[in-house]
Amino acid sequence: MTPSKDTVLCMSLAGRPGTFGVRFHNHLYQQLGLDYYYKAMTTTDLPAAVAGIRALGVRGCGVSMPFKEACIALLDELDPSAAAIDSVNTLVNTQGHLKGFNTDYLAVRQLIHQHRLDPAWSVALRGSGGMAKAVACALRDAGFSDGTIVARNREAGERLARTCGYRWQAEPHGVRARLLVNVTPIGMAGGAEAQQLAFEHEQIEAAQAVFDVVAMPAQTPLIVAAQAAGKPVVTGLEVIALQALEQFVLYTGVRPDSRQIAEAVAFARGD
Amino acid sequence: MTPSKDTVLCMSLAGRPGTFGVRFHNHLYQQLGLDYYYKAMTTTDLPAAVAGIRALGVRGCGVSMPFKEACIALLDELDPSAAAIDSVNTLVNTQGHLKGFNTDYLAVRQLIHQHRLDPAWSVALRGSGGMAKAVACALRDAGFSDGTIVARNREAGERLARTCGYRWQAEPHGVRARLLVNVTPIGMAGGAEAQQLAFEHEQIEAAQAVFDVVAMPAQTPLIVAAQAAGKPVVTGLEVIALQALEQFVLYTGVRPDSRQIAEAVAFARGD
Repeated sequence: MTPSKDTVLCMSLAGRPGTFGVRFHNHLYQQLGLDYYYKAMTTTDLPAAVAGIRALGVRGCGVSMPFKEACIALLDELDPSAAAIDSVNTLVNTQGHLKGFNTDYLAVRQLIHQHRLDPAWSVALRGSGGMAKAVACALRDAGFSDGTIVARNREAGERLARTCGYRWQAEPHGVRARLLVNVTPIGMAGGAEAQQLAFEHEQIEAAQAVFDVVAMPAQTPLIVAAQAAGKPVVTGLEVIALQALEQFVLYTGVRPDSRQIAEAVAFARGD
Repeated sequence: MTPSKDTVLCMSLAGRPGTFGVRFHNHLYQQLGLDYYYKAMTTTDLPAAVAGIRALGVRGCGVSMPFKEACIALLDELDPSAAAIDSVNTLVNTQGHLKGFNTDYLAVRQLIHQHRLDPAWSVALRGSGGMAKAVACALRDAGFSDGTIVARNREAGERLARTCGYRWQAEPHGVRARLLVNVTPIGMAGGAEAQQLAFEHEQIEAAQAVFDVVAMPAQTPLIVAAQAAGKPVVTGLEVIALQALEQFVLYTGVRPDSRQIAEAVAFARGD
């Protein structure tokens, strides 16, 4: 679309700006004929950046590390999705009123529902970072009450376990759970543990379903092993697509259809 | 150009954002394969907007009414082009250091030189607004010492005349000048005085050259009359093209050739 004086600007703020959001949003704007533009940015002065978003009428802003918690004090309102986990990944600016959302949390809540993951199941979740918090709190709020946080970082792991009323242990060995969830970089392309399994084979065999938040690749060793064992899976591709879609809807008020979304995700990933 | 995470953002701030800058800059970015994007914006909070430009790493910003003077206190440095007239129409952000320029002034200085307008000539300039100040000061600084400011607004007219060491009078009648300059909306399409001449026929006959800053249309009644009388002219099209070009060079470091500029100006005007 040819830029006009009325083009609506959306952006992202990240310590290290990535490519997915720029490609996903701009591709959908173009496909849907929306006079919007999406720009990835970074800052060393978060308060001024957020004040600038408000003053310049930037419509929406994706928020990534390390700004997800620090931005909260600068906003006018928190959506329950962000309040639930004290973490914002999406700002929406409505005539100078800034509201914070967490579409990672919203996406995981939706995926739990879509995949009919049963809250009666016990759950083991690996990880203790910001995304692990979003996923663990989404599970907690969906009714999963029997959980174990598996995290090598004892302080963060115990804190997240307390937040959710779950147990903590450092390594997965010995945990028995019906739902296995990985929210660490294990299995991520290019990482030191790209070839590793986030859970043991016998844990996968004993599970009802396996959820891996790693999106690059979507076919992590954990997902591949779960599929080989005939288990239903939820992949990181679904999380990244759904959270970006929810951002898109918040910014534009337009909900693309599933074919358009799949196509935009494939484009954004460079598939 | 497909937006990338490295796309450089430039923008404009105006009380009423226009179309020319958006179309001119984005068209040239595309033609030259530059990973830049230009966005027209407005604000009701100039300090926060300028702080946001700094914090978000927006590379450059065109500044229009009513922000040209108010922004000065918010900048780190003024180029002589802006300091000469206490008016900024261009911000350049170099790693958080904001420098203000006035490319209207720079454009007029260049046009005086290009068209070999002789500083020994007497000059009559109609107008007393921000652009009139840029043009009058450019004339003054180019050595034009014998001048008359013609302005119905006595206070602004006398102030500008004092600034330049020129005389003031309310109406053009009776002024004899070798160079006639119009910096009012007289002759502008859609205005109340679209069909009027900024100077009298006999003043045009007596002049050496005629300069009209009105760009829409470039062929104002004054320019048409001057051409009919065989006088050399400088048109508003040249001013708008040159000032936008100087902004472009400041933002990108790239100087398009004259064919590319002419083509971008025609595109931006919707010719």
